[in-house]
Amino acid sequence: MKPTTLPIALLDPSPRRMELIFRPDRFEELQSLVQLKPGPGDPQFQKPTPVEIDAILPEATYVIGQTDMPQSRLKSAPHLKAIINVEGNFLPNIDYDYCFARNIHVLATSPVFAHPVAEIGLGLALSLARQIPQADQAFRQGQEWYGLTGSHSAVLLRDLPIGIVGFGDLGRALLELLKPFAPSHRPVAVYDPWLPDRIIRDAGAVPVGLDKLLSSCRAIFVVAAVTDANAGFLGAKELDRIPRDSLFVLLSRAGVVDFDALTKKALDGSLRVATDVWPEEPFDKAHPIRTAETAVLSAHRAGAVPSCLLEMGDRIVEDIRLINAGLPPISCKRGQAETVGRMRSRPVKKT
Amino acid sequence: MKPTTLPIALLDPSPRRMELIFRPDRFEELQSLVQLKPGPGDPQFQKPTPVEIDAILPEATYVIGQTDMPQSRLKSAPHLKAIINVEGNFLPNIDYDYCFARNIHVLATSPVFAHPVAEIGLGLALSLARQIPQADQAFRQGQEWYGLTGSHSAVLLRDLPIGIVGFGDLGRALLELLKPFAPSHRPVAVYDPWLPDRIIRDAGAVPVGLDKLLSSCRAIFVVAAVTDANAGFLGAKELDRIPRDSLFVLLSRAGVVDFDALTKKALDGSLRVATDVWPEEPFDKAHPIRTAETAVLSAHRAGAVPSCLLEMGDRIVEDIRLINAGLPPISCKRGQAETVGRMRSRPVKKT
Amino acid sequence: MKPTTLPIALLDPSPRRMELIFRPDRFEELQSLVQLKPGPGDPQFQKPTPVEIDAILPEATYVIGQTDMPQSRLKSAPHLKAIINVEGNFLPNIDYDYCFARNIHVLATSPVFAHPVAEIGLGLALSLARQIPQADQAFRQGQEWYGLTGSHSAVLLRDLPIGIVGFGDLGRALLELLKPFAPSHRPVAVYDPWLPDRIIRDAGAVPVGLDKLLSSCRAIFVVAAVTDANAGFLGAKELDRIPRDSLFVLLSRAGVVDFDALTKKALDGSLRVATDVWPEEPFDKAHPIRTAETAVLSAHRAGAVPSCLLEMGDRIVEDIRLINAGLPPISCKRGQAETVGRMRSRPVKKT
Amino acid sequence: MKPTTLPIALLDPSPRRMELIFRPDRFEELQSLVQLKPGPGDPQFQKPTPVEIDAILPEATYVIGQTDMPQSRLKSAPHLKAIINVEGNFLPNIDYDYCFARNIHVLATSPVFAHPVAEIGLGLALSLARQIPQADQAFRQGQEWYGLTGSHSAVLLRDLPIGIVGFGDLGRALLELLKPFAPSHRPVAVYDPWLPDRIIRDAGAVPVGLDKLLSSCRAIFVVAAVTDANAGFLGAKELDRIPRDSLFVLLSRAGVVDFDALTKKALDGSLRVATDVWPEEPFDKAHPIRTAETAVLSAHRAGAVPSCLLEMGDRIVEDIRLINAGLPPISCKRGQAETVGRMRSRPVKKT
Repeated sequence: MKPTTLPIALLDPSPRRMELIFRPDRFEELQSLVQLKPGPGDPQFQKPTPVEIDAILPEATYVIGQTDMPQSRLKSAPHLKAIINVEGNFLPNIDYDYCFARNIHVLATSPVFAHPVAEIGLGLALSLARQIPQADQAFRQGQEWYGLTGSHSAVLLRDLPIGIVGFGDLGRALLELLKPFAPSHRPVAVYDPWLPDRIIRDAGAVPVGLDKLLSSCRAIFVVAAVTDANAGFLGAKELDRIPRDSLFVLLSRAGVVDFDALTKKALDGSLRVATDVWPEEPFDKAHPIRTAETAVLSAHRAGAVPSCLLEMGDRIVEDIRLINAGLPPISCKRGQAETVGRMRSRPVKKT
Repeated sequence: MKPTTLPIALLDPSPRRMELIFRPDRFEELQSLVQLKPGPGDPQFQKPTPVEIDAILPEATYVIGQTDMPQSRLKSAPHLKAIINVEGNFLPNIDYDYCFARNIHVLATSPVFAHPVAEIGLGLALSLARQIPQADQAFRQGQEWYGLTGSHSAVLLRDLPIGIVGFGDLGRALLELLKPFAPSHRPVAVYDPWLPDRIIRDAGAVPVGLDKLLSSCRAIFVVAAVTDANAGFLGAKELDRIPRDSLFVLLSRAGVVDFDALTKKALDGSLRVATDVWPEEPFDKAHPIRTAETAVLSAHRAGAVPSCLLEMGDRIVEDIRLINAGLPPISCKRGQAETVGRMRSRPVKKT
Repeated sequence: MKPTTLPIALLDPSPRRMELIFRPDRFEELQSLVQLKPGPGDPQFQKPTPVEIDAILPEATYVIGQTDMPQSRLKSAPHLKAIINVEGNFLPNIDYDYCFARNIHVLATSPVFAHPVAEIGLGLALSLARQIPQADQAFRQGQEWYGLTGSHSAVLLRDLPIGIVGFGDLGRALLELLKPFAPSHRPVAVYDPWLPDRIIRDAGAVPVGLDKLLSSCRAIFVVAAVTDANAGFLGAKELDRIPRDSLFVLLSRAGVVDFDALTKKALDGSLRVATDVWPEEPFDKAHPIRTAETAVLSAHRAGAVPSCLLEMGDRIVEDIRLINAGLPPISCKRGQAETVGRMRSRPVKKT
Repeated sequence: MKPTTLPIALLDPSPRRMELIFRPDRFEELQSLVQLKPGPGDPQFQKPTPVEIDAILPEATYVIGQTDMPQSRLKSAPHLKAIINVEGNFLPNIDYDYCFARNIHVLATSPVFAHPVAEIGLGLALSLARQIPQADQAFRQGQEWYGLTGSHSAVLLRDLPIGIVGFGDLGRALLELLKPFAPSHRPVAVYDPWLPDRIIRDAGAVPVGLDKLLSSCRAIFVVAAVTDANAGFLGAKELDRIPRDSLFVLLSRAGVVDFDALTKKALDGSLRVATDVWPEEPFDKAHPIRTAETAVLSAHRAGAVPSCLLEMGDRIVEDIRLINAGLPPISCKRGQAETVGRMRSRPVKKT
């Protein structure tokens, strides 16, 4: 028996399904914090019609989902405290300025992707350093070479200066995994033009300029978000700065790099390239990078870990509990007036 | 101009070559600490004949290499302070008891293998968790699946209880890389029957029994050396304890595990198996493990990193400098009366 | 020569002086980012009159200082983007709701106090554990006892379960210093009723309830801010839960504890109490806690480190640079609609 | 009922008492591993006469204590495997060369002192940085100053380059506690002339020469053991290199420093000196250092923590268990042929 005084949450998670983002006990907990509309017993559960949405908003405290929220709808929802995106990115279907003027939080569950991307990022780097996929494939074909004979190109990550391009949630998660590989006299280098140096230093890395990072590091992780301003900022000239035979791991968006130039580097053996992101997805079946010998290729799988999607539910419950108690949310990422627009151009992540 | 009073070192590194284990500046430094015999200008440089060996030993303070050293030879070498194995393991070709009674250090350069094995060990685990080689191969064949569609089996290492079997140099190096993956409320578990619990705890892990480790961990790293006593200690019964779909990374010696039982687990999908070591090397070309879908296979490449061999020279120079100064060596591994015999059975590492 | 297009900053830092919070090069940098009014050459530099303030606000983008900002003044400042408090706390002299509706950031430089408070907190705990001040005083009086004779009550912090009450900036800074003292099988415990457990775990601590923390920890650090709701939440009953002879270090506000009960514990020897904060300051000269043998007493000195005040200038420059570039501030603490009022009751910190 | 086949341990712990170094359960465990002679029921328990000692040695596998062991006695003990010093240091009352030729381990329980000395070392440094004892004393006298008024000389340890002189067990324990205070771009500096640079780097510090350390660090911890060779190596000239107002914490032996020069520095305010060790103990009651305003004085209390003495029993039991199993000891410190003589001159620690 739920008290009738529970705040109401419009539930509109599509294209996600609640069972993919909530563990059963967390879904129970959610229902102890809010009254879901449409609820589990309703015919339109998880997929309210526009008419239903308009009917629910006037009494809603929360929106859970990527519902279009133009000013007209926002105006019809006087009790609204938070819109919680369960897809991952801030989309251009909300009147953010109006939300901020009303102190309506716009939240995204994207922090759940930091750990899975960081883990596969390190896995790709170690795969490049030791040619793990190539050696596995050779073994399966009965063509393996034992010991040093098959490992002349093996390098130790610990021996390579490491650099991270971009230092958001993902860069920070990656840094923690990389710290044991960086000796104390040569900490991980970080480039992020949006961040004061002090903050990078406090996190245990060393802030450097982009050119310095590219020319001095030999294991480079690209986790910078793409914006209108930085598209293609890693062009042919920048890639040329990177020392020969370095590891280059691309994790955020293909749009930050000149992909043709990168492909050339991968094919002529001057860089060992791993990438999880692609200029178009699905990607050209005949593209030459598919044949690059030392490369490691991954089809936008970095964030795609089922257990991480379930962390979305954890974070939603945590923040609703806080907001119900009159406190600010802290588990989801908060849209901010200055940046929410810059990120709008990101394509929908297919996870 | 070298002073004629430099101590003499018999140089007999075969099957290693000095240029693989010494950077040029380190080789210079070595020559400032000892007089090498045969020296760089001698016809038998790096490959002294038995007659030459017998002629050099009476004046030698050091032996650098895997020279047979029975008691007769040791008795002919009254100034001998250290025998420095550059191959990796303590072999049964030395009268160790006699050495220890004479305070002759028997040293091995094997600690250089700890970091490369730890790095590939983590790389193999992440490859298993995210099926990196399989995804790479699919991409090369134009059969990749994007996002969650191709990642239903993806797991986060951070979500899995981690266990290490064996806690020597290698286990310790591995632990440092794994710490960022283990949340504070669930530290890495370690099983090592030779070690007091306190020492495992002081290293930042939790000591557990073998059965507990196998039944509670979901990412298991086997780095235990094989001895007469522990051969095959991970048999079918032990493997059965491991939770289904766990990661199992075998890095030390195939002899510690029932390889047929492990193969069965890899084939029926109950374990994700990565192995770098094999019952025989080269391994049976028709062995069914070569077809195990979720496995990752590596041909004894874990220690085979060229830069690590060069660390051998670093450690040799460091310890000779200490011994010359009347101090005990600390960079190489010291043979000990109690254990040197237990390890004798280890096959020669093919790096 | 400054371009006339620099945004204008009303400078009203009193009671702070710019030279205490800005290094000379940082003050230069500030002047390259904003036009200060009144400026260094003006008679009212650092102390504008109300009339001047009213004259500057209509063109001001920033306010640097604790200026009273009721709605009337805010309405007169259409370009205002941020109010930057250089004193430390959010005061009730601003119409926060109006600021948030206008997307005006209200910032405080209080994060600079986290490190100095954490350092003295650990210093006080070690002083309690080893009775450093008492031993120093005895030595000065020629009454020292050597070795174990004078150390029967000495305890190792490493042997004691550690707990932190409150987990804001300060609790986090303290946790990092305490981690090396907490063995892996017994991480630091944290109680913070405002935070989801997951966030405490991700920081490397273990979330526990207050009663559990008090009854199971033997070195307790209190860094919880005082609010209307939690005043005196550490009463006699709570203090009774703490195991005898534990260390109790009070760093945030005396108001969170029943000070009479704490004094009793300090005097009867059942707790070793260190406190930096007092119910009134200056404190009663005749108060019995001044005679507590095992206590360590500190006169609100925890945040008072000259170099830390200079970090205020660093943070201000960093955030103004970001806001000038159209980005959100990240170095100062941002006032939030939900909490800024809760903290208003905090007395002004006398640093 | 103990089996009669337990190895025999001569028990001669004086001046220690078993109850100070063994927890009851550990003492039980010890008795399950060896047969103590004299045993708990014997009249001479813990204090065998020379005649008894001579009678027990022929059947003893272990000696627990600081028994004189000249060659004559060693020859009478053909089964002897280890002599376990429970006092702390290697004394010159053993024929070490004879022991090493016989593979008899000579063990010391001194590693138990690493943590207590490291903790008080950090406590003394923080006490110097924040003048904790002085402020406590002022408060007790009703002469406290609040906030910044009383803290003009306060410094943050985090702001100071940190150096450690000597890198044995103690230096390593101290380094772990100091790491959170050293930002990533300025790791802790270590000087140890006995150690290869690589080992210091692998521990997470930066190796530097003594002059560099003294002239560049502002928080200096001296934990170097005194030997015949290094007595007084920190003379007036060396102390002059240290930047004014630095923290200087002396923890190992007064003999490594020119104590008069150090006193002068403490008195004229050019260094903030904390010392736990003294040229003679008890120390001159009229010595001027007792009046040094900014100093912190401690009467050889660094290792004197009751719980740490109990760790001696833990380590003894651990090593006896290993030796009984035919394995080398690892919990106690092993005397080594090259160094055991160098340390003989250390005075007996009064704990």
